[in-house]
Amino acid sequence: ARTGTPEVVFAGGKTPAETVGCLAGLLDAGLPLACATRVDPETAAAVLDRWPDAHVDPVARVAWVGTPPPPLGEVLVLTAGTSDGAVAAEVAATLAASGVGCRRVDDVGVAGVHRVLAVAPDLAAADAVVVVAGMDGALPSVVAGLTDRLVVAVPTSVGYGAAFEGLAALLTMLTACAPGVLVVNIDNGFGAGVAAARIVRSAQR
Amino acid sequence: ARTGTPEVVFAGGKTPAETVGCLAGLLDAGLPLACATRVDPETAAAVLDRWPDAHVDPVARVAWVGTPPPPLGEVLVLTAGTSDGAVAAEVAATLAASGVGCRRVDDVGVAGVHRVLAVAPDLAAADAVVVVAGMDGALPSVVAGLTDRLVVAVPTSVGYGAAFEGLAALLTMLTACAPGVLVVNIDNGFGAGVAAARIVRSAQR
Amino acid sequence: ARTGTPEVVFAGGKTPAETVGCLAGLLDAGLPLACATRVDPETAAAVLDRWPDAHVDPVARVAWVGTPPPPLGEVLVLTAGTSDGAVAAEVAATLAASGVGCRRVDDVGVAGVHRVLAVAPDLAAADAVVVVAGMDGALPSVVAGLTDRLVVAVPTSVGYGAAFEGLAALLTMLTACAPGVLVVNIDNGFGAGVAAARIVRSAQR
Amino acid sequence: ARTGTPEVVFAGGKTPAETVGCLAGLLDAGLPLACATRVDPETAAAVLDRWPDAHVDPVARVAWVGTPPPPLGEVLVLTAGTSDGAVAAEVAATLAASGVGCRRVDDVGVAGVHRVLAVAPDLAAADAVVVVAGMDGALPSVVAGLTDRLVVAVPTSVGYGAAFEGLAALLTMLTACAPGVLVVNIDNGFGAGVAAARIVRSAQR
Amino acid sequence: ARTGTPEVVFAGGKTPAETVGCLAGLLDAGLPLACATRVDPETAAAVLDRWPDAHVDPVARVAWVGTPPPPLGEVLVLTAGTSDGAVAAEVAATLAASGVGCRRVDDVGVAGVHRVLAVAPDLAAADAVVVVAGMDGALPSVVAGLTDRLVVAVPTSVGYGAAFEGLAALLTMLTACAPGVLVVNIDNGFGAGVAAARIVRSAQR
Amino acid sequence: ARTGTPEVVFAGGKTPAETVGCLAGLLDAGLPLACATRVDPETAAAVLDRWPDAHVDPVARVAWVGTPPPPLGEVLVLTAGTSDGAVAAEVAATLAASGVGCRRVDDVGVAGVHRVLAVAPDLAAADAVVVVAGMDGALPSVVAGLTDRLVVAVPTSVGYGAAFEGLAALLTMLTACAPGVLVVNIDNGFGAGVAAARIVRSAQR
Amino acid sequence: ARTGTPEVVFAGGKTPAETVGCLAGLLDAGLPLACATRVDPETAAAVLDRWPDAHVDPVARVAWVGTPPPPLGEVLVLTAGTSDGAVAAEVAATLAASGVGCRRVDDVGVAGVHRVLAVAPDLAAADAVVVVAGMDGALPSVVAGLTDRLVVAVPTSVGYGAAFEGLAALLTMLTACAPGVLVVNIDNGFGAGVAAARIVRSAQR
Amino acid sequence: ARTGTPEVVFAGGKTPAETVGCLAGLLDAGLPLACATRVDPETAAAVLDRWPDAHVDPVARVAWVGTPPPPLGEVLVLTAGTSDGAVAAEVAATLAASGVGCRRVDDVGVAGVHRVLAVAPDLAAADAVVVVAGMDGALPSVVAGLTDRLVVAVPTSVGYGAAFEGLAALLTMLTACAPGVLVVNIDNGFGAGVAAARIVRSAQR
Ligand SMILES: Nc1ncnc2c1ncn2[C@@H]1O[C@H](COP(=O)(O)O)[C@@H](O)[C@H]1O
Ligand SMILES: Nc1ncnc2c1ncn2[C@@H]1O[C@H](COP(=O)(O)O)[C@@H](O)[C@H]1O
Ligand SMILES: Nc1ncnc2c1ncn2[C@@H]1O[C@H](COP(=O)(O)O)[C@@H](O)[C@H]1O
Ligand SMILES: Nc1ncnc2c1ncn2[C@@H]1O[C@H](COP(=O)(O)O)[C@@H](O)[C@H]1O
Ligand SMILES: [Mg+2]
Ligand SMILES: [Mg+2]
Ligand SMILES: [Mg+2]
Ligand SMILES: [Mg+2]
Ligand SMILES: [Mg+2]
Ligand SMILES: [Mg+2]
Ligand SMILES: [Mg+2]
Ligand SMILES: [Mg+2]
Repeated sequence: ARTGTPEVVFAGGKTPAETVGCLAGLLDAGLPLACATRVDPETAAAVLDRWPDAHVDPVARVAWVGTPPPPLGEVLVLTAGTSDGAVAAEVAATLAASGVGCRRVDDVGVAGVHRVLAVAPDLAAADAVVVVAGMDGALPSVVAGLTDRLVVAVPTSVGYGAAFEGLAALLTMLTACAPGVLVVNIDNGFGAGVAAARIVRSAQR
Repeated sequence: ARTGTPEVVFAGGKTPAETVGCLAGLLDAGLPLACATRVDPETAAAVLDRWPDAHVDPVARVAWVGTPPPPLGEVLVLTAGTSDGAVAAEVAATLAASGVGCRRVDDVGVAGVHRVLAVAPDLAAADAVVVVAGMDGALPSVVAGLTDRLVVAVPTSVGYGAAFEGLAALLTMLTACAPGVLVVNIDNGFGAGVAAARIVRSAQR
Repeated sequence: ARTGTPEVVFAGGKTPAETVGCLAGLLDAGLPLACATRVDPETAAAVLDRWPDAHVDPVARVAWVGTPPPPLGEVLVLTAGTSDGAVAAEVAATLAASGVGCRRVDDVGVAGVHRVLAVAPDLAAADAVVVVAGMDGALPSVVAGLTDRLVVAVPTSVGYGAAFEGLAALLTMLTACAPGVLVVNIDNGFGAGVAAARIVRSAQR
Repeated sequence: ARTGTPEVVFAGGKTPAETVGCLAGLLDAGLPLACATRVDPETAAAVLDRWPDAHVDPVARVAWVGTPPPPLGEVLVLTAGTSDGAVAAEVAATLAASGVGCRRVDDVGVAGVHRVLAVAPDLAAADAVVVVAGMDGALPSVVAGLTDRLVVAVPTSVGYGAAFEGLAALLTMLTACAPGVLVVNIDNGFGAGVAAARIVRSAQR
Repeated sequence: ARTGTPEVVFAGGKTPAETVGCLAGLLDAGLPLACATRVDPETAAAVLDRWPDAHVDPVARVAWVGTPPPPLGEVLVLTAGTSDGAVAAEVAATLAASGVGCRRVDDVGVAGVHRVLAVAPDLAAADAVVVVAGMDGALPSVVAGLTDRLVVAVPTSVGYGAAFEGLAALLTMLTACAPGVLVVNIDNGFGAGVAAARIVRSAQR
Repeated sequence: ARTGTPEVVFAGGKTPAETVGCLAGLLDAGLPLACATRVDPETAAAVLDRWPDAHVDPVARVAWVGTPPPPLGEVLVLTAGTSDGAVAAEVAATLAASGVGCRRVDDVGVAGVHRVLAVAPDLAAADAVVVVAGMDGALPSVVAGLTDRLVVAVPTSVGYGAAFEGLAALLTMLTACAPGVLVVNIDNGFGAGVAAARIVRSAQR
Repeated sequence: ARTGTPEVVFAGGKTPAETVGCLAGLLDAGLPLACATRVDPETAAAVLDRWPDAHVDPVARVAWVGTPPPPLGEVLVLTAGTSDGAVAAEVAATLAASGVGCRRVDDVGVAGVHRVLAVAPDLAAADAVVVVAGMDGALPSVVAGLTDRLVVAVPTSVGYGAAFEGLAALLTMLTACAPGVLVVNIDNGFGAGVAAARIVRSAQR
Repeated sequence: ARTGTPEVVFAGGKTPAETVGCLAGLLDAGLPLACATRVDPETAAAVLDRWPDAHVDPVARVAWVGTPPPPLGEVLVLTAGTSDGAVAAEVAATLAASGVGCRRVDDVGVAGVHRVLAVAPDLAAADAVVVVAGMDGALPSVVAGLTDRLVVAVPTSVGYGAAFEGLAALLTMLTACAPGVLVVNIDNGFGAGVAAARIVRSAQR
């Protein structure tokens, strides 16, 4: 945790036993919190089997053992559509594990721009903003025009055809016409959460 | 003109003499109007040399010989940024040549969403909407959420890096999260103008 | 329905329960019709379980609860091959839900150009044309040369190898050498139906 | 010429002196004909300077020294648009150098399908067909449906935007929905000419 | 069969019942042979159930009902590796259905160039050559240098990583440095077979 | 400047006169500072002609009229190689215009990892880090492992071949295996500078 | 084995029976060792059924029958992360089958650059180095800066989103800013092992 | 030169003065040899102006000041076509600067496979092989099947259309069906030379 970020196991390509082993290693090393992302149901079961009081969020596919620090500050997490919810949940879980507060407003896609405008007070109250969007990925462009907070943009693989598994949203976000937009990998809610937490902590220093 | 669209020469890969020859051929065939797009300065000079009263629009790179029909109805043409102006001018010139009215509002990029909202009365007054945008190409998604008119979206090659010569804007528009968005080729102001003119004419039938 | 288009739930990434919930929400809000696309068999069953008199089209993967407006005008829907049928069915169902008439002619691929020519009377009778094609996606280019109606082109993911999941057809349609062709996302029968319905309604205004 | 094809120097990346040297080498080796493609004006001048009675075709960018065999059979070469003319000229020059007859019909793009139908008698009279097309590249699909001759399809880099330097036309031709279409590289008029010549010679054997 | 090619149903996206229906339609129309490609085991069973004396080739995934014409001429079909066998079998079945003779030599990849050289007598005896190769797709380049026959090149989706589902082989074949190579779609054994049959028939005319 | 960022004109696609006009418009509106990026020599001359005391940085291609706020805090700007210098200069100029301090260390590519390690004290002293790298784009991955500061990664178009105009570096940065890396568009030094300035200001709030 | 490399069957697209047949063929031809890669559990079982004393490595998915030569020299095999282990195991198994010694150090990703520095003594002791990495693929760039040994870089398909199935890592390795890096196909542990073995043998000659 | 490779300045994106400055810096640091690649004529003149006895190779675009070590061993450098000569010259110059012997055989493309076979004695005599090829990039696959030496494959940007600036050749080489092929970046003659020199030196140790 030298970098101020919780140690996190990427369970993606690992067996349940491997993930449990990695988490145990972190705890054995004396860390107060061991976390895993991309946790499928089998892995979640294995974690709960080993540590019955572990925290498991099946939507975010995140699990942790131990106690996160108490929450500080507030990150606003916006999604463009319902289907972006799982990635937003990974952002929220990462923030929780990092000891940073989180406020979510869902389903504020740019096709209903009045709903976007309605989040203005939330933007003003936030230390940083994370915007999660698939398909056209246009939401960060609009949000960044409404705030002087940093906008961490997360393209998702939601969509079909020319969405090309998130490529369309990724390119949109990289070329967003408002400055202040920073981009992470497709579906990388964890990376967005870590970055937003660092912004909050630096604002609180 | 069987399809109700002015006969248009694509001067792109042609010499000035070839384009002049094509225009002369159309006029010889008895057409009241002969039009050319992608007209560079040399070609424009050659056209004016042959037909001193030809109409030449150097920004749109469009030229025509003869008299367009009087304008009918109104198409609203929006641009996201100043640099999209040349493509929007090609839309406007195509509408003029097609005998359709046109109203332009420029520089209403989504990073300043209040400027977009300010075009609401123009949207209500229009028979169809053409939206021209490069970079992230996000404007059609927002506009389509504000109107029940058809939105013809024109991606432009404006931008750099991950804009990939208009590919980013093209993918954004194809995956626009509001329905009612139809897309033409990158920088194809002519195609958008033809399509919008057909919508107006069908509304006026 | 401010935009004159039925409210439609994209069931794609949702559980049956979530889709049923979204539909119920729309009906609770007083809408006369609630529609869903990309409805798989499980979701269809859940919809029928909740609303036994719901309309379900298993080929189009579309379901709706309530009564669509009576049909107005006529859209001609053409397919290049049998395998494009499911996407064309989504177009047709969207038109029905939008209260617009629809006439389908299937399997008129350009390899049998005389069959394409035979639809000329249908083109003349239509208010707008939707062309659905995979593989080479060449049909809209030919059809747009035969009519002054707008042609809404829908590339499909039908094909293999260099069809690249619909990319080949998409690029063909975007570069169609006849003007008047407008393009939607790969397999987006819903978007094509909404657009065609708007053209018809504007023609009927 | 073991393969029955004239020895041809690709002048593309070579200096005029290098190309002249290569041609001289072929003639020194006793060949009756030495040919070069992609010959720019400087190279053409250098060739004529060395061999004043050389044959140079500036549109096709082909030059040869010596006498081609007398023409045998007939290949029909079709272009979709005027801008495809240079590539078609390379096909024709290659056929001439190979001793095969050639008949060209230009500007029969699929947007004017009646013009395509009008070539039916030419198709019936030909030993093989070469179709040259850029933009959407749809012409080979239509032509192959009208004939039992082999169709050699040449995509060209004509177009802009989503034409992607000939990629759109290439993919269209590879996925052509009529069988009997064989494809060469973008702008490869030489390759198409060689292939068509072999078909004619095998038909004449 | 106006184009001299057997009528063939692409069973790819169809149910067994649909394919059987298409075949029955062709036979009802009086055709002597009805053929289907991309026939999976279920479809094969349905075909045999309806026509117990149908011919089914499970490796080629081809089925036909009726009697093909007696074989004429000879096409040499080469494969680079064992895994290209299914596509080569589709070529062979198409040739058989077209009444054209076929000789196969397998596993002559360029990494063992002496095996390639050993097919020289077969090349000399053939009317046309079909080369089937995945991975690097290099075999047609070598073969075309050894013969004056036309080489129909079929890239296959065999390979992994940078083979990109056949894209690597496709590009290799399109840019083959020996002239006389013509290319069909990835895994398109049917198209290659049709083309080769036409070459043979034109040689026999 | 509602978003706390200087108003900046993108001179990229504009004539010198247009850029001067845009800057004058900003000053007329009462802004204390008007800035332009992507300023070529002609535009720089036009700016100096109009405002002789304008600040022009020819390497960064940035110009401004007026006085930036006094610098606050410190951003560390690292480059992997000498050729990344122009983009790093755009970062530095943007920081200066934003009233944020900047410290640059150049030529610390990962091939000399001991040079990277030597910047550890600079990392500890910085409020945020900007890493500019082309070719393999590997530097942000290493730097992010050495610090708990946010790392804003700027891929550059430096390189050739498989660098694909910055695409290789962009993908590397998006998939960086250390968390805390946020990415902007290729060559977008302006966007990185704006973002880093916001981090510093939020740390100073 | 003329090329000094064990004969290896690629079991990828083969049935268990086909792979067993290929191995038997090699043994019948008198080879002392017959090897197969990409061996799935069914194939492994079939191999053991036929040759009970065969060697099977289920992680590497490699199997062999016979006795490899005694190990000579040493190749250092590094992985960036745990998920790259299967590919590294294929490298190790190939080295073993080639009679070359192997030392593995795992999980030395560049985000923890001090762990990379700790392998310096291993680098000095090795005859060649193989670096296996997915995601950003940055490890070979760093390692090549620390050694004068050849670095064989193996990109893996580990990762998601912009990792694009190993493409990101592949491009990173091809553009590595340190010289001495040579690249094989994505996930091609076999190719890397063969190459490293040849380097060792040439060093031992 | 800790890594046993000459220090080399990449003059690609640098002014003549910058490159001269970098070379002077290396010499000032006491190195016996300072080298630059991608040297254009202006830079070459500037180098000769400063060091009249510098060595400049205008085809390879390489320059050096000082004396390379005497040559050791031999690398065989093969090109597929004349146009690959400049890249092969960069390989040769890099070998010379590294103190390694080099033997070149040009124009042995796979379309003339007997010429490839004729290099067998050269292969047997070499310590390592570098193969330079554009277009289809097929030569390394054939060469690797003829030798147990390592084959360093250099794709070049020679070609047009589907050669996609060297991408076709790059993919071919990465998927080469013979083992023992290692790949460097497109047009990277320098990287191939460094790698081959290391193989030779390790063989001579
Ligand atoms: N098949 C479809 N393709 C594209 N967009 C759709 C489709 N079906 C519904 N939509 C749109 O998706 C939005 C609903 O998304 P959601 O809120 O996720 O259900 C609506 O705005 C619809 O217009
Ligand atoms: N325009 C062309 N496109 C593709 N290949 C060509 C062309 N012109 C000549 N060639 C081939 O290029 C080879 C000659 O290349 P070179 O030795 O570089 O002159 C011959 O095998 C020709 O068959
Ligand atoms: N170098 C740059 N890269 C990306 N965006 C920029 C750059 N310079 C200015 N901008 C943005 O471009 C917009 C101005 O565009 P324009 O109105 O065309 O001058 C402003 O919102 C700036 O934030
Ligand atoms: N995992 C692998 N990746 C790439 N090539 C392989 C692999 N395993 C075996 N090969 C090569 O594939 C060829 C055998 O292919 P096959 O004849 O289809 O079994 C041999 O030349 C091996 O060198
Ligand atoms: Mg929604
Ligand atoms: Mg603007
Ligand atoms: Mg059909
Ligand atoms: Mg034309
Ligand atoms: Mg084999
Ligand atoms: Mg450097
Ligand atoms: Mg790790
Ligand atoms: Mg040659």
